[in-house]
Amino acid sequence: MSILISGFEAFDGSTSNPSACIVQALLTRSDIATVILPVDSVHGPNRLLETIPKIQPQAILCLGEAARRSAISVERVAINLKDYRIPDNNGITLQDEPIISDGPDAYFSNLPVRKITQAILAAGIPVELSLSAGAYLCNQVMYAAIHATRFTTPRPLVGFIHLPSLPQQVVEKNQSYPSMALETSQKAVQIAIQVIRQTLENNSSQDINSA
Amino acid sequence: MSILISGFEAFDGSTSNPSACIVQALLTRSDIATVILPVDSVHGPNRLLETIPKIQPQAILCLGEAARRSAISVERVAINLKDYRIPDNNGITLQDEPIISDGPDAYFSNLPVRKITQAILAAGIPVELSLSAGAYLCNQVMYAAIHATRFTTPRPLVGFIHLPSLPQQVVEKNQSYPSMALETSQKAVQIAIQVIRQTLENNSSQDINSA
Amino acid sequence: MSILISGFEAFDGSTSNPSACIVQALLTRSDIATVILPVDSVHGPNRLLETIPKIQPQAILCLGEAARRSAISVERVAINLKDYRIPDNNGITLQDEPIISDGPDAYFSNLPVRKITQAILAAGIPVELSLSAGAYLCNQVMYAAIHATRFTTPRPLVGFIHLPSLPQQVVEKNQSYPSMALETSQKAVQIAIQVIRQTLENNSSQDINSA
Amino acid sequence: MSILISGFEAFDGSTSNPSACIVQALLTRSDIATVILPVDSVHGPNRLLETIPKIQPQAILCLGEAARRSAISVERVAINLKDYRIPDNNGITLQDEPIISDGPDAYFSNLPVRKITQAILAAGIPVELSLSAGAYLCNQVMYAAIHATRFTTPRPLVGFIHLPSLPQQVVEKNQSYPSMALETSQKAVQIAIQVIRQTLENNSSQDINSA
Repeated sequence: MSILISGFEAFDGSTSNPSACIVQALLTRSDIATVILPVDSVHGPNRLLETIPKIQPQAILCLGEAARRSAISVERVAINLKDYRIPDNNGITLQDEPIISDGPDAYFSNLPVRKITQAILAAGIPVELSLSAGAYLCNQVMYAAIHATRFTTPRPLVGFIHLPSLPQQVVEKNQSYPSMALETSQKAVQIAIQVIRQTLENNSSQDINSA
Repeated sequence: MSILISGFEAFDGSTSNPSACIVQALLTRSDIATVILPVDSVHGPNRLLETIPKIQPQAILCLGEAARRSAISVERVAINLKDYRIPDNNGITLQDEPIISDGPDAYFSNLPVRKITQAILAAGIPVELSLSAGAYLCNQVMYAAIHATRFTTPRPLVGFIHLPSLPQQVVEKNQSYPSMALETSQKAVQIAIQVIRQTLENNSSQDINSA
Repeated sequence: MSILISGFEAFDGSTSNPSACIVQALLTRSDIATVILPVDSVHGPNRLLETIPKIQPQAILCLGEAARRSAISVERVAINLKDYRIPDNNGITLQDEPIISDGPDAYFSNLPVRKITQAILAAGIPVELSLSAGAYLCNQVMYAAIHATRFTTPRPLVGFIHLPSLPQQVVEKNQSYPSMALETSQKAVQIAIQVIRQTLENNSSQDINSA
Repeated sequence: MSILISGFEAFDGSTSNPSACIVQALLTRSDIATVILPVDSVHGPNRLLETIPKIQPQAILCLGEAARRSAISVERVAINLKDYRIPDNNGITLQDEPIISDGPDAYFSNLPVRKITQAILAAGIPVELSLSAGAYLCNQVMYAAIHATRFTTPRPLVGFIHLPSLPQQVVEKNQSYPSMALETSQKAVQIAIQVIRQTLENNSSQDINSA
């Protein structure tokens, strides 16, 4: 039983990204596959899409940074839109373009988003169910991963969690927006992985029972 | 050479207060005296004022919680005003009253507030020089402590640092405001203590040189 | 050529709603049909859906209030989700339910949202292209209207604009969130209507040319 | 009976300033003297201080803009500190300097700030009693005016009101912070002037009665 966790490289002038830090810390776990994606309109999603068939994961949890947010954001929906407010790390800015030309307008995550949120909350960590993953690379990767796996059997659980900036990123950028300690974000992601694992186990035992 | 650090009890429906947590963690240090103040319009300031002559500290650093702030706030000024937005833990709400009837309108902190801020920033922790400590117990305790020690010889360094809420407090109150991990706030306070200690040592060696 | 504009009744303890005020001010225009919807999980969308076939509008612009937002929000997307944070005016709170059981996860608005935003901006009014209409009545009405008209020929332009609270609403609720004067919101809506009208005229002349 | 109202020129890249707009609109009133101050660390306060003896006003109400605030802010206190976050219009940035070398740390406004706030609130306009006028030109002018008139007999009422940015300023700067329509801010200032006038009349009749 395997879970694929993706994170992003640093972008927008930062020297770090909480999602990459968390992914690196997961490298040692044998039950988890990881990949760090470039913040690149083409290679970001492609790197993830190339990794999926190699791993054939039962669940894909993508992580990214959401500057200005003060809580962990469990994303409910990815929309078929690329509308970048800042350029990607390759200098590309896209406006009002679809991710998949003939794709549906949006996909809901099939992760147990409510359960994940409740479990993180129960651990005393600020978290919200978010209704928008934006229209930048994070949303794009989430949309692309759900789209690419929608006919896979069995269909993997796919979703996205946004993390607040790290304290040192806020300092680096001389901004006044909120932050979250890496330890806190990391604990939230570990809880999310645990909830996903339980869901997979439950699904798996139901399949056996119904066979 | 001794430094007195004060914190506050929990208030406004919270079960904890980052300032009390930090003060408790400092209990084991022999060079630091600590006191936790009740969130009470009368006994809060009095508890601090009773402690000062017993300790005769060279510096007094008061700590408190500022819900809604995302950064450590090093306070520059305390004003002669009690104007509570929420009642104290004894149910008392005061409006438009002076702290000291014939006291000056305000006192600047004589802590090295700029140096403290720069040192915390250098450690990658979000921090700001704040122009208002509010008009609640925090401001009251800061004003009272500066007023009470203004003619003491040698005059102690006195000031106040506001800490963001802890993550679990934000969850407890079902709010969406920012938080800061206890470890991060604690590190910031340790840095502040170090800067205060250096300032005291420099002042002390200057006194010896000038004698 | 007709445009249908909807607004909502007051809700969440307010005695007014900027969307209702603006709709009332449009009552005298012969080229515009209006309807004010109850903030009711069933009758809100139904009232709109009943009105559409009677008017057979070429465009439907739904208006609603978004407390806490400081700018006019031109919504890009409606999602198939009812997840109320506050009860409707009938006391009903829904969680994690679809609007249309077998409907697609989301619909993009087919209004010229970018042009509308640019025209409002050119008039010096704060405005943003919004990626989430929430998961309350506003989103529900937008989703329902797009869903109901998706096979109508010719297909009407359908979308939603969120308005900040009025200054007096913020005062009424003793809150500190931003507001926008009714005159400013009203001007923004008038500009949106003008852009929609031009789009309809352009579409219409293209149809003639292509005939 | 005369009241002096000051405003500021545009600054920080804006082409307008709500305080200047309101002052210009008051030019026609014979009972009010007005002055628009340059955003200049030296000439700003000086222009006001030169005007005061010519007018010998019974009250001085200074107005300024506070970007990022969503409500009218009636300032309670001015502090003896120049600590600019942005340069003045002459390119000067000051840090940690006193306004008056041997002046007190702060002055409370002697305007009826609570009554002004309540009257503006009663008109349905978002307003707050503010505990900090910042450490820029606004605070400097407020401090300088109170300091300069503290021994004048009879002592004039002196204070400061901060106004949110105008909608078009937020658009100009491509920012997402809140704004307030000029009409709303203007009404708030008119109400403040009315409360000040009533206070002056009451004081005046008390003086006669007590004579």
